[in-house]
Amino acid sequence: MGRKMKAVLKAKPEPGFVVAEVDVPAAGPNDLLVKVHRAAICGTDSHIYAWDAWSQGRIKPPLIVGHEFCGNVEETGSNVTGFEVGDYVSAESHIPCGFCYQCRNDQQHICGNLRILGVDTDGCFAEYARIPASVAWKNPPGMDPDVAAVQEPLGNSVYAVLAQEDVAGRAVAVFGCGSAGMFSTAVAHAAGAYPVISVIKHEFRRHIMEELGSDLVLNYKDDDVITMVTERTNGVGVDIVMEMTGNQTAIEQGATVLRKGGRFTAFGIPAGPITLDLASLVFKGATILGINGRLMFKTWTKMSAMLSSGNLDPRPVITHHFDLERIDEAMQVMKSPKRECGKIILTLG
Amino acid sequence: MGRKMKAVLKAKPEPGFVVAEVDVPAAGPNDLLVKVHRAAICGTDSHIYAWDAWSQGRIKPPLIVGHEFCGNVEETGSNVTGFEVGDYVSAESHIPCGFCYQCRNDQQHICGNLRILGVDTDGCFAEYARIPASVAWKNPPGMDPDVAAVQEPLGNSVYAVLAQEDVAGRAVAVFGCGSAGMFSTAVAHAAGAYPVISVIKHEFRRHIMEELGSDLVLNYKDDDVITMVTERTNGVGVDIVMEMTGNQTAIEQGATVLRKGGRFTAFGIPAGPITLDLASLVFKGATILGINGRLMFKTWTKMSAMLSSGNLDPRPVITHHFDLERIDEAMQVMKSPKRECGKIILTLG
Amino acid sequence: MGRKMKAVLKAKPEPGFVVAEVDVPAAGPNDLLVKVHRAAICGTDSHIYAWDAWSQGRIKPPLIVGHEFCGNVEETGSNVTGFEVGDYVSAESHIPCGFCYQCRNDQQHICGNLRILGVDTDGCFAEYARIPASVAWKNPPGMDPDVAAVQEPLGNSVYAVLAQEDVAGRAVAVFGCGSAGMFSTAVAHAAGAYPVISVIKHEFRRHIMEELGSDLVLNYKDDDVITMVTERTNGVGVDIVMEMTGNQTAIEQGATVLRKGGRFTAFGIPAGPITLDLASLVFKGATILGINGRLMFKTWTKMSAMLSSGNLDPRPVITHHFDLERIDEAMQVMKSPKRECGKIILTLG
Amino acid sequence: MGRKMKAVLKAKPEPGFVVAEVDVPAAGPNDLLVKVHRAAICGTDSHIYAWDAWSQGRIKPPLIVGHEFCGNVEETGSNVTGFEVGDYVSAESHIPCGFCYQCRNDQQHICGNLRILGVDTDGCFAEYARIPASVAWKNPPGMDPDVAAVQEPLGNSVYAVLAQEDVAGRAVAVFGCGSAGMFSTAVAHAAGAYPVISVIKHEFRRHIMEELGSDLVLNYKDDDVITMVTERTNGVGVDIVMEMTGNQTAIEQGATVLRKGGRFTAFGIPAGPITLDLASLVFKGATILGINGRLMFKTWTKMSAMLSSGNLDPRPVITHHFDLERIDEAMQVMKSPKRECGKIILTLG
Repeated sequence: MGRKMKAVLKAKPEPGFVVAEVDVPAAGPNDLLVKVHRAAICGTDSHIYAWDAWSQGRIKPPLIVGHEFCGNVEETGSNVTGFEVGDYVSAESHIPCGFCYQCRNDQQHICGNLRILGVDTDGCFAEYARIPASVAWKNPPGMDPDVAAVQEPLGNSVYAVLAQEDVAGRAVAVFGCGSAGMFSTAVAHAAGAYPVISVIKHEFRRHIMEELGSDLVLNYKDDDVITMVTERTNGVGVDIVMEMTGNQTAIEQGATVLRKGGRFTAFGIPAGPITLDLASLVFKGATILGINGRLMFKTWTKMSAMLSSGNLDPRPVITHHFDLERIDEAMQVMKSPKRECGKIILTLG
Repeated sequence: MGRKMKAVLKAKPEPGFVVAEVDVPAAGPNDLLVKVHRAAICGTDSHIYAWDAWSQGRIKPPLIVGHEFCGNVEETGSNVTGFEVGDYVSAESHIPCGFCYQCRNDQQHICGNLRILGVDTDGCFAEYARIPASVAWKNPPGMDPDVAAVQEPLGNSVYAVLAQEDVAGRAVAVFGCGSAGMFSTAVAHAAGAYPVISVIKHEFRRHIMEELGSDLVLNYKDDDVITMVTERTNGVGVDIVMEMTGNQTAIEQGATVLRKGGRFTAFGIPAGPITLDLASLVFKGATILGINGRLMFKTWTKMSAMLSSGNLDPRPVITHHFDLERIDEAMQVMKSPKRECGKIILTLG
Repeated sequence: MGRKMKAVLKAKPEPGFVVAEVDVPAAGPNDLLVKVHRAAICGTDSHIYAWDAWSQGRIKPPLIVGHEFCGNVEETGSNVTGFEVGDYVSAESHIPCGFCYQCRNDQQHICGNLRILGVDTDGCFAEYARIPASVAWKNPPGMDPDVAAVQEPLGNSVYAVLAQEDVAGRAVAVFGCGSAGMFSTAVAHAAGAYPVISVIKHEFRRHIMEELGSDLVLNYKDDDVITMVTERTNGVGVDIVMEMTGNQTAIEQGATVLRKGGRFTAFGIPAGPITLDLASLVFKGATILGINGRLMFKTWTKMSAMLSSGNLDPRPVITHHFDLERIDEAMQVMKSPKRECGKIILTLG
Repeated sequence: MGRKMKAVLKAKPEPGFVVAEVDVPAAGPNDLLVKVHRAAICGTDSHIYAWDAWSQGRIKPPLIVGHEFCGNVEETGSNVTGFEVGDYVSAESHIPCGFCYQCRNDQQHICGNLRILGVDTDGCFAEYARIPASVAWKNPPGMDPDVAAVQEPLGNSVYAVLAQEDVAGRAVAVFGCGSAGMFSTAVAHAAGAYPVISVIKHEFRRHIMEELGSDLVLNYKDDDVITMVTERTNGVGVDIVMEMTGNQTAIEQGATVLRKGGRFTAFGIPAGPITLDLASLVFKGATILGINGRLMFKTWTKMSAMLSSGNLDPRPVITHHFDLERIDEAMQVMKSPKRECGKIILTLG
């Protein structure tokens, strides 16, 4: 298979990406080869682009980056069952080993030997992506490819928001206005939560939050978040906090507005150790749920139906499209000081 | 307190109701006296009206009937805290003892010594109703009194639909088009279920089901329910069956369309023993949830927020209003052969 | 691979088994070939032996029967990871497809395309057994092979007893004294249930139940089960019923002694439709859990630790050992009129 | 009622307790008056004795201290049902308001207006104690009064250990050897956990831990806790951490030995804010459960049966008895530098 394709590479251990011609990968016996149509940029890609400390410890260049996408199956490995050439698919980015304690206990998403697409193996910012069939997900035929391409990050929020009790009629405060914060607002609203309170940092995203169904948008710097959330919930506090930032202030505000007996969902990744008033969370009888990845494939199953219903529509989050070749420009927009963007899509083919 | 009031009485052990003048009850130390504004008629009231076998074994005339209502607190007993004169309230109809095994294990709704308002104690089809403060529920000030009056039966459906896993993105088939079937369709839709399939008997209610958010309305006699539900769910079957009829055919259809590993919610009360293919439910790994009443007050808390959000609106179900004096006419409409009605409200004061 | 081995065959569509020389199977790319050391006889094997209606519809002779066993890995297929030659293994008998709705939603044990070892594929009553690596389970090195061989049926009870709430300090009534009834008594006791009440049919097994930790053994014909269970639970009834018989009388007794809000675990397979007083279970707010198979591999993980702890010891259930050649004799003992046996083990090699 | 009784008082805002003669309290309409037989000393009593910062902010002298006890009902208030003179009772120490959000949502133990016996109201270190009937718990007639007196703190551990998934066959690491640590070891063992690993500070309590069923006792200073727990669990880590100290080192060790997807139970109350590597807990998909109090009365119901079964026996924890008058001596023993004691009981009457 001497075919060549365009791909976005972390070519060397230094900042930046390179667009290059590389070999189209061959599908191994348990793999699918997918022709990529749309891919989406994640915060993880930004870390790799910037070549920060985490990237330096984890990434082994050269590597094709990217892990959010959709496309069509072009080739199936010899052992693959359940998928056929032409299938319209997206993929779970967490590749489980299948044999560890977690994999044999319904926790493949946090596999003890976890590898991540576009981080530990070549990813999807390319004309073709090779993925294990075990992480492929079939999309319904007519699904908008922009929507299909953002299911991986949307799934984080579907899992995180609905990780425990049902949220219909429950007060939810979402901290953060990155993708995870925006998607969590949408999911909470689609699942009947009320009120959904979104605490944002970047004013550009206020309108997006409103479009997604937020009942109250607060700015964590300008508004008295604690007082306003407490008043909005008649002094009780919120049933559920979605902490999607990893930021010390957000963690503190979230822990404070959580009602006694409520659930604090920890999704944001702090850059270092945090300071926590654990005593007050114990007295509150609070539950802190650490969320990583998505259930394989409970989350995808549920998300697929929520998208089909029309109740959940992530499109207000998508603000920009770029050709693959314009990846550098896309990375700049994504990190613009005022974050005047939402989710950014790369288009191929 | 020599005051008199109008009330609907089961006066004697025979069919029918009587509208009579009776003493306004005095509030005991743990009671509230409520001035009734709206009351709603339940199937249980029909049983008592008809004086069927169940009624003959349970009801001790004379009794003021009715258990669904709203009104304002007129008087509070000497031990009562948490309520004040003027509060706008509805009431849970299940009166728990507070000391049995169930009451001390968060199952007051199925108390071992359960008494029911309007069944075991005087009810609310009257200008005033006396209720224990322990079953009173404060409504938000501006709530539509029609909505406030139907919270008790709506709560059955809120509890039943959301009794276990969250339903967002889950396929739900509701069997039955009585109040419980209509309300369950509304609740499933409001909580993000998809598709919501309503299997009805009376064509009058098809349009109501559609207004409530049903994605597919089938008639259990005219349509090939099993084939159509199976197709609608890509051959998998529904995640959740809501069996709101107690009818043998509905139970069989429901058990058949339930997917492997699904939940069969048993709310309808069969008139006698049923025949069940238990083996197939065991092989399916199905869960059958028997549902009676509503959680006190988890269900009310959740329902109150769902109503405030506007996601859940039971008003399409309400089709008729009658003055208390016209109770006989109301009972006739309710039992009209083609059920050309939804929920019927009695207006007072 | 021209090697031959002894095996117990359902050779033709007629009653009985045959011991024959057959080819040792070759391991496919995803398989393990296991040298069998101990195998155990299940009620399913009795159905196949008797060639009853169910067997006639399901079994395609010639077939090597048997699905409960332990042994050592002799050969691993080319794609297999996670297992090595020499590993001491047992196997889950439910072979999932890996791609259906259930397989992708943590319900592989009730896969939509389920095949069962020794039923739909050649089984383990033979010197060698070929199994997919996906259903193999590694045993700890020193495990008693009798114990290792009965983990599949023991796992049914581990799953069934612990399928929902924890049972420590809960009253459990086990109906049935077959393997499932005996093992469930052992599991309930090991997990801290109290009292554990065992309702038996065959007096031979009374002493086994007592050894397994039963706090009260009743005979369903001689004892007034309902009165005695009610008294033993201070009039409340039991928290959990384990119905391991499929028998109409046991189902009725179980449903009657279940407390309001309790859990009725349906594991026994009725021979035909049953009659059920569903109304009373609905009023009780009961949950009926249909249980089939074991969780893959949550149940095995938990069971393994329970066995290692010594809290759970199934050996009192094992009463007989036979060489593979004496399978006919073993089948006779198993169906002796007074069931003067427990679990029967076949020894090989 | 001019009767007098002996009582242990926090008489003034200063360190120490005083034994004094005070009036026997009169039972209000919803109260029980209980003749106290045994009472037990809690760490909270030590804080009050020492008059530390927390005590100075919370306690309003004069106050009868103590909240763990058993005794017999001597008098019942006029509205009380469900209890009679002579009943052998203990009491839940958390007195809920009955009307707040938490009280109406099955979380009375963390009531929004919570008062605590012996902290916010007069307690039980006295010949008589007045308690609301709503927090009274009937003991079985023959229960050892030492056991009956320690049910309140034992209940903390029953709730904490069994707060989520069942623990049979699960690896549990208990950090701390105070009452909560000792009782949690006993509860985990009684509910079938394996292995139960106890991480202690005071060597005197090593033998107690072994008697309570600990499978491995480690000293947090002398042993390499992280390595030893990891090895004992085959590199996986423990399913459940019980953090019963509030100590920074224990929190860190616990978070480290927790397996991916495990549960970290936070019961210990840190003296101030802690430093937490939240990122690693998020990546682990860990759940942190804050536990305060006991479920009312789910925990008491379960505990009562666990004690009746004999599986759970807290008596190895009880090392000393003192007459009420010797309270000072008891407080000294309790705070002896090497903690050469377990739970200390006060005897009355």
